[in-house]
Amino acid sequence: MRSTHRLPNLRIAVVGTGAVGGYYGAKLAYYGRDVHFLIRSEQERAAVRRFGLQIKSRKDGFRVARINVHATTAEIGPCDLVLIALKATANDALTDLLPPLIGPETLLLTLQNGLGNEEFLAERFGPHRVLGGLCFVCLHKTAPGVIEHQGYGNLALGEFSGYPLPRTHDIAWEFKRCGVTARVVADLAEARWRKLVWNIPFNGVTLLATAQRPPDAPPVSTADILADDALAYLTRRLMDEVIAAARKLGHPIPADFADLQFKRTAEMGAYLPSTLLDHLAGRPIELDAIWGKPYRQAYNAGAEVGRLETCYQLLRRLTASANNGSRHPIP
Amino acid sequence: MRSTHRLPNLRIAVVGTGAVGGYYGAKLAYYGRDVHFLIRSEQERAAVRRFGLQIKSRKDGFRVARINVHATTAEIGPCDLVLIALKATANDALTDLLPPLIGPETLLLTLQNGLGNEEFLAERFGPHRVLGGLCFVCLHKTAPGVIEHQGYGNLALGEFSGYPLPRTHDIAWEFKRCGVTARVVADLAEARWRKLVWNIPFNGVTLLATAQRPPDAPPVSTADILADDALAYLTRRLMDEVIAAARKLGHPIPADFADLQFKRTAEMGAYLPSTLLDHLAGRPIELDAIWGKPYRQAYNAGAEVGRLETCYQLLRRLTASANNGSRHPIP
Repeated sequence: MRSTHRLPNLRIAVVGTGAVGGYYGAKLAYYGRDVHFLIRSEQERAAVRRFGLQIKSRKDGFRVARINVHATTAEIGPCDLVLIALKATANDALTDLLPPLIGPETLLLTLQNGLGNEEFLAERFGPHRVLGGLCFVCLHKTAPGVIEHQGYGNLALGEFSGYPLPRTHDIAWEFKRCGVTARVVADLAEARWRKLVWNIPFNGVTLLATAQRPPDAPPVSTADILADDALAYLTRRLMDEVIAAARKLGHPIPADFADLQFKRTAEMGAYLPSTLLDHLAGRPIELDAIWGKPYRQAYNAGAEVGRLETCYQLLRRLTASANNGSRHPIP
Repeated sequence: MRSTHRLPNLRIAVVGTGAVGGYYGAKLAYYGRDVHFLIRSEQERAAVRRFGLQIKSRKDGFRVARINVHATTAEIGPCDLVLIALKATANDALTDLLPPLIGPETLLLTLQNGLGNEEFLAERFGPHRVLGGLCFVCLHKTAPGVIEHQGYGNLALGEFSGYPLPRTHDIAWEFKRCGVTARVVADLAEARWRKLVWNIPFNGVTLLATAQRPPDAPPVSTADILADDALAYLTRRLMDEVIAAARKLGHPIPADFADLQFKRTAEMGAYLPSTLLDHLAGRPIELDAIWGKPYRQAYNAGAEVGRLETCYQLLRRLTASANNGSRHPIP
């Protein structure tokens, strides 16, 4: 517990109080940490000021009544640690949002999905202050200040610039002391690819299969994929392809990793990934972070990624209007 | 013109009087050949008996007033040549339909799409009598006995069992004398793959993109594909993959073949492939003939077919109900 001395009283900002930022921020606030939430919607600010943040969960739900809510990051001012949990599609906003939060020692921890978020922060604010966190958690924001926690919750933390540092472990400990199962990963890039091994196929195929379902049929869940010959086969082959691509990129993902992913997915029951919920609600999805950048990285390394390419192009087309027609470069 | 003597008065049956069977059969009948049409629907028989077969076309429409219409193949009896133009999905019916038409010298010419139709006939009726014909034509049956001819019309004929024979040329001549641009191909399997080079990507991607279009948007045509970055890229890459697979299977398709296909497709304008129209009308599509069998053939030859595999599995899922949930084996 030596690290308590190093981070005695962290000042923490949460940028992006959606499901992920709200959940992990609420955990820290519940255990008495000095957490400041940026909430840009006035209606949402009012709700959280009045009712706090509520985490609904079958096992360990909780409510934090007094929440530091802010309309701007200038109002928050410099912090020791900034949790970034905007959708990756909104990253451009960070260029203006983050500077008021950043002092000489400020650490930026992105909890966002997919590839490219650490790079985005590193280019603008310096690589030395950037950490990445992978959230293995099923969350769903159901109302302003109300987050449904459907399962899991663990966090994997790593340094963008290299091996873990003492500060990496300190932050992991800070989360652990606040009831979050946190661990430090030696190789953040590998950890991101390990997560993509699940996200690329399952988020992708639930989306594509939902988009082509008959009118009035329910959305296609992970359980529906496993129950359908064609979709299960496609998803498995796509996962095998992503694993092969990751290995080609130098990430030694073991041979039985896909079997394990499918076993765990079966145990999860009928899950609708957040990209699917976002798309169904008309919100943009993290197309480039989850499919585009991994595709280009793998393609440029010479990996065979025909399945990923096909899914990515169909998803590009599917989400063209929701993503405001933004074009992603083709290698 | 020596071949006139060899085939003086062919007795011809047309099994499957849809757009393709109706069009080519009407051409032969218009030029005075002894053509007998099998029409199983009573309503359709009545319409064709009364009004004949009408080919609507901007350039060379025509009508054949007196048509030999039959309810059963037993009523037709043995023929010299049988044109088979059922959907490949209905092939099982041929086992009962064809025997009454077959005498010792009867030739079976399948005008169906994709792979496996010649093999189906060869197994049941002997390979020596089987020919294949590839139809390069845009047709659309709009009412009983009424076929809209939207463009092209040429026919490529080949022998199932090997190189062309005198009879192959005779049959091609018979079509030519009836106003059909017909040619003989030395290698039917290669010709089938050349046609698949277009059909697999363009029929596939128009279907998949149409299935995922927003509610009330029009179907996605070939022109829509060419106008969309993601779909054009996907279609081109899929075509390149099919060409590579065909080459792996020993069919020497030249390097500039894909460019040529895209150039021709651009000239075609906004075309909706027949599989797309079939699917939109709730009819089964030739999933196994156009995607399944080519996929398995290429896969088993060790070709990289991730794009074809992905499209095939998504199409399997899409058409599962229309194809009565029939399962196609996975390699």
